[in-house]
Amino acid sequence: MIIIGERINGMFLDVRKAVQTQDKKIIQDLALEQTKCGANYLDVNVGPSSDDPKSAIVWMIEAIREVCDTPISVDVYTKFEIMEAGVKSCAKGKVLINSTNANPVKMEKLFPLAAEWDACIIGLTMDKRGVPADVDYRVETAATVLATAMEYGISTDRIFIDPIINPVNASQEQFLNVMEALDQFKLLADPAPHYVVGLSNLSAGVTNRPLVNRTAITMLMAHGLDAAIIDPMDKEIMDALITAEVLLNKTIFNNSYLEAYRKSLELRAK
Amino acid sequence: MIIIGERINGMFLDVRKAVQTQDKKIIQDLALEQTKCGANYLDVNVGPSSDDPKSAIVWMIEAIREVCDTPISVDVYTKFEIMEAGVKSCAKGKVLINSTNANPVKMEKLFPLAAEWDACIIGLTMDKRGVPADVDYRVETAATVLATAMEYGISTDRIFIDPIINPVNASQEQFLNVMEALDQFKLLADPAPHYVVGLSNLSAGVTNRPLVNRTAITMLMAHGLDAAIIDPMDKEIMDALITAEVLLNKTIFNNSYLEAYRKSLELRAK
Repeated sequence: MIIIGERINGMFLDVRKAVQTQDKKIIQDLALEQTKCGANYLDVNVGPSSDDPKSAIVWMIEAIREVCDTPISVDVYTKFEIMEAGVKSCAKGKVLINSTNANPVKMEKLFPLAAEWDACIIGLTMDKRGVPADVDYRVETAATVLATAMEYGISTDRIFIDPIINPVNASQEQFLNVMEALDQFKLLADPAPHYVVGLSNLSAGVTNRPLVNRTAITMLMAHGLDAAIIDPMDKEIMDALITAEVLLNKTIFNNSYLEAYRKSLELRAK
Repeated sequence: MIIIGERINGMFLDVRKAVQTQDKKIIQDLALEQTKCGANYLDVNVGPSSDDPKSAIVWMIEAIREVCDTPISVDVYTKFEIMEAGVKSCAKGKVLINSTNANPVKMEKLFPLAAEWDACIIGLTMDKRGVPADVDYRVETAATVLATAMEYGISTDRIFIDPIINPVNASQEQFLNVMEALDQFKLLADPAPHYVVGLSNLSAGVTNRPLVNRTAITMLMAHGLDAAIIDPMDKEIMDALITAEVLLNKTIFNNSYLEAYRKSLELRAK
């Protein structure tokens, strides 16, 4: 499982305050702690923390780079030049561009950027028609993303297809469609892309948020999800995810598999 | 989700003691408490608690019937006459025969019993060749169970197909086969049978048993499992299961869905 740590995001008050007061340590501590807990990428999103998101994302990434070399997921949905500045500022390490979608206007800018910096890239299964409400649209737009990536010389195993998870409190029926889309994606490309979701969108405004998130992630993993944007400092979601990997026979069972996983993180840190 | 409460089983020390000292109250309390927590059936298994399992199972079922009319799952794997005595002793209520398999010698006794008492019946996906080690054998034996049930006039929606879950510490790769078998079962019969597993077999001897069980059940529910033999007094597995039902759009989301579920159990008890 590829874990993309979600906590360095200006929608969280501590991060917002860090950006506004230029307090690097808050960002750096979140980077180190998420890495220690299992993050393979650190998502970095300015969110509502700054009126100058381009400077802010570069500052955030440079702050992280002072303390660790965990790969960065540059999370910019708006202007291309902010994404470009973010990607350039983590040039030394592995980068994930978060995100393009199947809209040609986005792909024709973001795929050349991904190709230039040898980056991985998340492809949301939507285009200018908007957020997906069925399976077919998800599969069609995923196919468009993958075919277009190949035209730019980007191998499909560098694409993270995101079927877009809707809030359970608004579009409850969409979770079934996401599972079904994950099943159908398997026929689309070889080598297989990765499959990712941003879980927080599922449970926005939900009382039992951690329970909903950790239940959902294992159900999606049972349908082939192999990456997720989550909070790796949430021990219970990590326990569920580590257990699901054992049940899926991706890591070898032993009676101390939780401890073994966390021991491997300690070794990785050295 | 059809919850079959596993706790009235002679492999548990309290139940063994209850049978040996003819202490009805222990059995009755477990019946009431499991029902209160969500059991739709109470599994009753003498296990190693008695040298006279036929008398013991009748005594256990009669004890339960004094305090509640929750349907009984008569859990006898050995002699037919013990099963028959058990089924007869709960004649007033809905009964689940646990279990037959695809062996003709078993089916030709147990299907007539099920037909006579209008019972549901669990069909294990194995025959005299033994425990399943792949998908094909599970699907083949499930088809045999379903076809044979129909010959005896038993509607397929009264059959609970059990793909047999293996211990993760011994046959780690089989969980994937169980998920795949659940997918393939969907093509076998109309009306659809139920799909059940005995989760405790998965985690026998495992340190993090409740975590493994609650992770597994939601992954299997994501592939169509709609019944399970579990301990409904384990609040965390019930929370996971209730949440999975919401994500599968089987119960309507509201922000208090856990409380609403438990409130509905209180109302059911009245």
